[in-house]
Order: sequence, then C-alpha cells, then structure tokens
Amino acid sequence: MTAAASAAQLEQARAARARYRAGAAEPTSGVAHGLVQANLIAVPADWAFETLLFAQRNPKPCPVLEVLEAGSTESRLAPGSDIPGYRIWRDGELAEETTDASAAWAEHPDLVSFLIGCSFTFEAGLADAGIPIRHRELGRNVPMYRTSTACAPAGRLHGELVVSMRPIPASRLADAVVISGRYPAVHGAPVHIGDPAALGIADLDAPAFGEPSEVRAGEVPVFWACGVTPQAAIMASRPPFAVTHAPGHMFVTDVPDAAYAA
Amino acid sequence: MTAAASAAQLEQARAARARYRAGAAEPTSGVAHGLVQANLIAVPADWAFETLLFAQRNPKPCPVLEVLEAGSTESRLAPGSDIPGYRIWRDGELAEETTDASAAWAEHPDLVSFLIGCSFTFEAGLADAGIPIRHRELGRNVPMYRTSTACAPAGRLHGELVVSMRPIPASRLADAVVISGRYPAVHGAPVHIGDPAALGIADLDAPAFGEPSEVRAGEVPVFWACGVTPQAAIMASRPPFAVTHAPGHMFVTDVPDAAYAA
Repeated sequence: MTAAASAAQLEQARAARARYRAGAAEPTSGVAHGLVQANLIAVPADWAFETLLFAQRNPKPCPVLEVLEAGSTESRLAPGSDIPGYRIWRDGELAEETTDASAAWAEHPDLVSFLIGCSFTFEAGLADAGIPIRHRELGRNVPMYRTSTACAPAGRLHGELVVSMRPIPASRLADAVVISGRYPAVHGAPVHIGDPAALGIADLDAPAFGEPSEVRAGEVPVFWACGVTPQAAIMASRPPFAVTHAPGHMFVTDVPDAAYAA
Repeated sequence: MTAAASAAQLEQARAARARYRAGAAEPTSGVAHGLVQANLIAVPADWAFETLLFAQRNPKPCPVLEVLEAGSTESRLAPGSDIPGYRIWRDGELAEETTDASAAWAEHPDLVSFLIGCSFTFEAGLADAGIPIRHRELGRNVPMYRTSTACAPAGRLHGELVVSMRPIPASRLADAVVISGRYPAVHGAPVHIGDPAALGIADLDAPAFGEPSEVRAGEVPVFWACGVTPQAAIMASRPPFAVTHAPGHMFVTDVPDAAYAA
C-alpha cells in the first residue's frame, strides 16, 4: 500500500512534535488530520516478549505498528519522535506524568518501545464522511472505559479490555462500522454497539481515562477497542517499570491513515 | 468472525493427524479441504522474542496464528496436534528429518512454538473458483524458492523471503489476486506476478524446497510469501536449536479457512 502525506500534513505533524518536544501538553485528537497516531508502551527488555505476545493475542486493542530496538527512542514512523504526555509506572502504580521521559530511559536503558494503532486514525475517516466526532466538538479528550471483558493473557501480562466511546447517530451506525472496519491495524470495527452494561460499564459519565462525552437524542454509544488496554494490563500485572503515553496524548506520525487501510 | 467446520472436514483432519501421529509422512496440500493448515517453528525461549518480532516485522511471510506457551505442544487450533514431518535444526544446519519430534522437546523443554499461516488455506478458495492447482494435479509438493528480497531483521534473526509458486492462467490472474487477498492471515495476495528473475529466482525447475511444478502455455508464474521463510532465517541466523515442519508437511487444524477471511 503506497500513500503519500501532503506537505501541509507533514508540516502540522512536525510542528506538533516540536511543541511536544518543547513541553506542550495537549490531547492529539484532530492534530495533523489524516496522519496516523500511535499509543506507546515501553517495558524493560525482559518483559518485551510477553508484551509482544499480549499484543499478538489481543490484536484488536493492541495492533502493533512498530517495535523499536531495545533502548531506541527513534521511530521509523516519524523523525524527532516525542509525545505531549508520558506516564511512568512503577510496580503497576502511576508514579509520574511528565512531558519529558528522558529520565526513564536513563534509568532503564533497555526499554523496548511498542507503538500501537490508535482510533484517532479512523476518526479522520468518520469526520470525512460527515459523522460527528463529539469529543472534538466539545474540545475534550475521548472517553475511555475499563470493561469486564478479559484480554487473553500472555505470561505475566493480563488485564481487561479498555474501550473508547463515540456517540454515533443511529442513521450513521452502519457507515461508522464500515469506515472503521477498513482500518484493522488501528482497532478496526467496533467491539460493541449500544448497551454499556453489556461491557460492564456502569456510568458513561465516569470514564476511567479521558473526559466524558455527550450522547444526544437519536445517538447510540459505540465502543471501539482502545490502545490504552496495555496500561490496564500494567496496572493489573504490575511489571516493575513501564512508560506509556498519557491517554489521548499520542505519538503523531508522518504516515498517512491510508497506509493502514485494508 | 464465526464459521463452523463440517463434521466431514473435522473427521478428515482428525484422521490425518492420527495418521501423522502413527508415523505417516505425506505433503498435506488438499488434506481436509477448507480447513486451515499451519507452518511450525519452535525455538528455545531466549529466541522467542526475536522470532515473534521477526514475524511482526514480516507479516506477509510470517502471519502468526498462534504462539504456544513455552514447552507446550498442544495447540488451541486442534487437539492431538501432530504433523507428518519435522525438521530438527542445530546451529542453522538441518540435523534430522523425522515424523516424531518428542526427543526435541525432551532435549529443550522450553521450546516456544509458533504456528504460522499457510498458503494451502487460500488454495481451497482458488480451487473452489475453478483455478487449477497444478502441484495437486501433478501429485507433488508445492515448489518454494529463496528470493533476493531480504526480510526485515529482528535482533539476531535475519534472512531472505521464501515464496511459493503456482502457475495461473492469464485469464484468472485477477481472480487469484482477489481470492488470496481475502486471506491476509495466510499470506494474502501475491508478492509478485510474472518474472522469476525479479525475485532473484534463476530456475523455476530448481526450487529450494518442495518439487518443481509446470508452467504451461498461457499461464503466468505467481509468487506468494511462504511460511518456510522462518526456516531460511534459521539457516541464515544459526540459532543453536530449532524445530520446524518439513516444507509442505503442515499442521492440519480444525479451524475453517473462513475464520481467517478478512
């Protein structure tokens, strides 16, 4: 699949990464429209096999776009890799949120970084089709929820599926499924349409990550597998150390969404 | 994706695995038509991450269907897992070909087994569409070739892409692409159509694995990424120990091909 990013897109992505490198913290939904964004999880080398295996066994929430060499922080998906929010985890507890994670790599030079597809990619397709992206309209981070659905475990790694939610007008549900289904490398079609309780979600207004959205009359909550799932696995599995992106604060790449269309 | 295997298919698969367990050696192309077959590569645990990463970086030749727990020989894809031909590798050299690999697991109890999609899966789709499968007509193993195309390396693992070849009537080329393209989990669409020299293949009558086929008038050689690629990586990378299937002698599962259709 060949597809080229426009000069304007690349300039937006570079400018965004430069802002993040300078310390800016902001959700990245809508930034550099049409370019792939990615979730980050970095673990010590002796957890790398289980992390990759967890992703292989749970491809819907954890579609792997790239695995960096141990210790490397330079992705092939964009030069000058940086993101607007890192989380540092110790023994499964959130120890710090920071815009500069260089101390983490100094402490653990063998960290293996995984870049995982993000639903912000297919949001571009939804928006292009005239489907409203409520959390963008509201200027908020997308709401994400823990579910009662267990992921397939891999060695020491286990945890529950995390989903993102977007309210979709009932008349556009089929379109939302078809459009997101074109991007299996970035979570693909929804995992559930409709009843939050079926996923074990008690209250849509109390997301575990991100910010609440608004489901309006004639709209249905639609749930997609979410790249924050590895963070839930870290919280459940308690590896001694890990680094992730802050939810909604993604790695903005130079790769066009079309490169990941099936 | 839900899809059910028929009782007749399951009986054929079970009977085949029972034959293999009893020591029969035969290529599996066409066995239990419509059920998925898989390539095997098993490596010591300290090579498992690099093997999985090699597969992640080379998904076309190495689509991972399942990774077994270290030491396990029981796949979720079918009970009574056994195949009609194993190869034992030492320091990258073929040390033995056998129908009973239990001594290998006794010697290396930590072997991690990878099951990788096989093009025999989409052969069912080609045959159902009336496209001739020449090597089956000839009662031979499919021809497989080393190419000059390097795979993306992963740590200590590197090697060249291996392809399988099927002669396809020019009038059916588009159908063959579309049909195999429906199965991205089992190599998907061809990597090349036409000129063997473009892949660095000097002589179609001298395959590196399997047996020669026959390209007849009006037919074009079509090349698909092949699950023997990890064996070429073993030969090039020389891990101290590995077990693979013998080329063409696959693991016949209980899973219908349709389960892996996109």
